[in-house]
Amino acid sequence: MSGSSLATAIHRISGSSQQSSDDLVAVEEPLEIRLGFEKNGSREDSSVSITMRTPGNDAELATGFLYTEAIIKSAADIALVTHCGPPAADSGSHNVIRVELEAGVDVDLERLKRHFYTTSSCGVCGKTSLDALRTCGAAHQSLTTTRFSKAVLTALPDRLGAAQKTFATTGGLHAAAAFDTAGKLVVCHEDIGRHNAVDKVIGELLSLGLLPATDLGLIVSGRASFELLQKAVMAGMPILAAVSAPSSLAVDLAREFNVTLVGFLRGDTFNIYSAEERVV
Amino acid sequence: MSGSSLATAIHRISGSSQQSSDDLVAVEEPLEIRLGFEKNGSREDSSVSITMRTPGNDAELATGFLYTEAIIKSAADIALVTHCGPPAADSGSHNVIRVELEAGVDVDLERLKRHFYTTSSCGVCGKTSLDALRTCGAAHQSLTTTRFSKAVLTALPDRLGAAQKTFATTGGLHAAAAFDTAGKLVVCHEDIGRHNAVDKVIGELLSLGLLPATDLGLIVSGRASFELLQKAVMAGMPILAAVSAPSSLAVDLAREFNVTLVGFLRGDTFNIYSAEERVV
Repeated sequence: MSGSSLATAIHRISGSSQQSSDDLVAVEEPLEIRLGFEKNGSREDSSVSITMRTPGNDAELATGFLYTEAIIKSAADIALVTHCGPPAADSGSHNVIRVELEAGVDVDLERLKRHFYTTSSCGVCGKTSLDALRTCGAAHQSLTTTRFSKAVLTALPDRLGAAQKTFATTGGLHAAAAFDTAGKLVVCHEDIGRHNAVDKVIGELLSLGLLPATDLGLIVSGRASFELLQKAVMAGMPILAAVSAPSSLAVDLAREFNVTLVGFLRGDTFNIYSAEERVV
Repeated sequence: MSGSSLATAIHRISGSSQQSSDDLVAVEEPLEIRLGFEKNGSREDSSVSITMRTPGNDAELATGFLYTEAIIKSAADIALVTHCGPPAADSGSHNVIRVELEAGVDVDLERLKRHFYTTSSCGVCGKTSLDALRTCGAAHQSLTTTRFSKAVLTALPDRLGAAQKTFATTGGLHAAAAFDTAGKLVVCHEDIGRHNAVDKVIGELLSLGLLPATDLGLIVSGRASFELLQKAVMAGMPILAAVSAPSSLAVDLAREFNVTLVGFLRGDTFNIYSAEERVV
């Protein structure tokens, strides 16, 4: 049994038959991300996020989150990542992780306190969110010359499915992966939250020294929301491919930053919502 | 065109063919929920949540959210619900809504500031979250005598699908509905966020005077997470049925509060994870 799934006793109903059995469910546990940093000569410690996630690759989740929120700029900003506190009594998973920044890394406390588009000043209308992305250094992708072939794109869902070990047993996880122009999945992660799966991928790319990932694409197993597009933009990725539908704000954001947005990627068909010149 | 979907120009790829066309995408816009209330003799105004949602039924979304967060106890606590501020420049949707409480309704400011399981003191381990639910008045469902037949449950997905008007055109929305013991969908809503769809349902039940809904079930089109189970518990609903998989923490919570949790509801088969005596 891995930490990402858990056996539980169930009753399985099929027509008029009913039987007791064991089933695997995807593990969901909260993770608190704390940040340690230096401010005015003293060490500070602050809680920056709590998310419901599937335990595993918590360090990548935390650092990917901090990178896509523009709190850290590179792996060199990180001194140490450690779980802290005792494990949760019921599950044994460590649900608090602390990212200690190097001395001298400047942290915007206001930014920490008020989440990206969860403040009244930056994000109640979509346009303002786009402005916020612009001001925190997200790059327009117009100069990226990376191209992805149709054959590479249509092969992605099967490759992603093959890499989804926990989904196969629980049916309960989202997956995300970074892929190269040859269609190889460079990094792949699963999580009960789709944004967490993406943060884990970006956090691993960060540790591998691959950010900004201007020559890699991002594929997600579900829908493409504003939040996922925002993470792709922050990671410098020129293409986001989703197995399911995009949202209106994801389309707006993709066009604003010239990211190629692909949706409904199934069989040999898909839709392109923006920057179609990147698909060859 | 309804406000929940938007036409957008796309390129549709199918094998070697490519054609330009218009496609409908589900609208995603932020909604800020603000709360007006009296504290120590003066009027206060506070932002309590910002969520990415599909415009429409914002009042139900806001009041359902406040109810499931235990900030309001009944419809009588609400004096007025109004959109405020100008419409967003790009979409025309009103993205700020204000719920004005009646004088004398006591609001826990600490609770407002620190979200339900998003604080280090109440929820970094699952057990603590369960404790938090207990202390905010969530009722154990052991005394509920409501029963649901297998035939009622297996008919739900088709009924929910038939009621999902926007999903049919965009493929991009979650749905949630309250159903009675005869299988009738009493209230049904769609949203790009599954928790928002549930809040809209619970908000409408509140306005209809149907809370706590001890004789109604909740069905959701996707997975059953901790958050959705928490909302069902707060609404007093004795059963949550999900078309897809539940998470481990949803199962824990369902067993703790004796809510019947049904998953993988497809065709004439489903799994029961807790309180199976309620399915007859």
